[in-house]
Amino acid sequence: MTQPPIIILVRPQLGENIGKAARAMLNFGLTELRLVAPRDGWPNPDSGPAAAGADIVLEKAEVFETLAEATADVANIYATTVRKRGVTKPVLTPEEAANEIVVAPGRSAILFGAERSGLETDDVAVARSIITVPINPEFGSLNLAQAVILCAYEWSKHQKLASPPKVDLDPPAPQVELDGMIGHLFGLLEEREFFFPPERTQVTQRTLRNLLTKPAWNSLEVRTLRGVLTCLEDRRRP
Amino acid sequence: MTQPPIIILVRPQLGENIGKAARAMLNFGLTELRLVAPRDGWPNPDSGPAAAGADIVLEKAEVFETLAEATADVANIYATTVRKRGVTKPVLTPEEAANEIVVAPGRSAILFGAERSGLETDDVAVARSIITVPINPEFGSLNLAQAVILCAYEWSKHQKLASPPKVDLDPPAPQVELDGMIGHLFGLLEEREFFFPPERTQVTQRTLRNLLTKPAWNSLEVRTLRGVLTCLEDRRRP
Repeated sequence: MTQPPIIILVRPQLGENIGKAARAMLNFGLTELRLVAPRDGWPNPDSGPAAAGADIVLEKAEVFETLAEATADVANIYATTVRKRGVTKPVLTPEEAANEIVVAPGRSAILFGAERSGLETDDVAVARSIITVPINPEFGSLNLAQAVILCAYEWSKHQKLASPPKVDLDPPAPQVELDGMIGHLFGLLEEREFFFPPERTQVTQRTLRNLLTKPAWNSLEVRTLRGVLTCLEDRRRP
Repeated sequence: MTQPPIIILVRPQLGENIGKAARAMLNFGLTELRLVAPRDGWPNPDSGPAAAGADIVLEKAEVFETLAEATADVANIYATTVRKRGVTKPVLTPEEAANEIVVAPGRSAILFGAERSGLETDDVAVARSIITVPINPEFGSLNLAQAVILCAYEWSKHQKLASPPKVDLDPPAPQVELDGMIGHLFGLLEEREFFFPPERTQVTQRTLRNLLTKPAWNSLEVRTLRGVLTCLEDRRRP
């Protein structure tokens, strides 16, 4: 199993946004946060409340003066940017980057720039690849935590830990139960002369059968519907 | 092309969060927002600033008193929930739901519950499927806008509009240019008796050739490196 990517915030401004980034990370199992020259120093009292419980990420966060120091032990550096810069590096989606990160030997890190200005050209220069979130060309307004969460989310898709809590659905009822219910219904309808004219009976019944087969009701649901039919049956009786 | 999903916020509390949801939507090309019984009425002055420019979504937002009215014209309803409820519906990831939505006939809608409490059991009952974001089992703390953005992001992957702004990378230089540069380097190295002992020359040259072939430098880069070599060559001259 490869190591999770390190999230590196380069010159982040507001402590609140650092906290939100930590929250976004931990939601998808990322815990290693590095801060390069945070504007308001570190620790920052505004980060805790915004982290909404992701304190472990903030407590473990490491602070560096330069990006070079923050990436010294990193083998694969990705720079997130929304703007096209005249750089000749591969541009990946978060999904493509995650696909690389999970198989890449060595540590990977994803760089995020300051809230307003993003990464500087010199920051991007240290990265091997660029990550750009494919976004509405007429309205691109991702904030820092949102950019972090999309990258963390894509990475987490590869992790067994984050697999969705699958519900065991009850299987469809055995055909005999469904047929019983359909026969029950048809009996009621025949009593009420629903199938008229007689030469249309077969077609109408086929239509109903198709319609009732489609939902793949389970045994409990079929029993419930039988109860409904019985009730309707009884109401005919004065 | 199928229609984009409608985002339905059921009993949202803070106007700020409605604005953030609108921003998240528009980032990925979704514009149809419906509000069911927003706690503080509508319009809400707190929503505009949080939308960060996604005003079109707020202006077009429709308000309904009940979820039944808000979903009257919807064919495929998805309910987002993090909690496992005793319901027997398929549980999909945002990705799986997006895969369905883009091919489903009829309108689709995704329901999101109130910030604190999420969707009520009765809200979930109207949905055909549940969407659950696979999340860190030890720290699940997605806010409303984050849940919206992940669903919108997955949907947008299917849209040509949102395709990533691919940079046209210059192709690798023709082999003749690379060979010219390698020959240039080997010439310099030979002059400096780098290839010693002579019987190792072939192996060393092969190692260098492999190493210099790997980066797939383009013509401009090769020319730049030729300049470097020329410079190194010249510096030998007193």
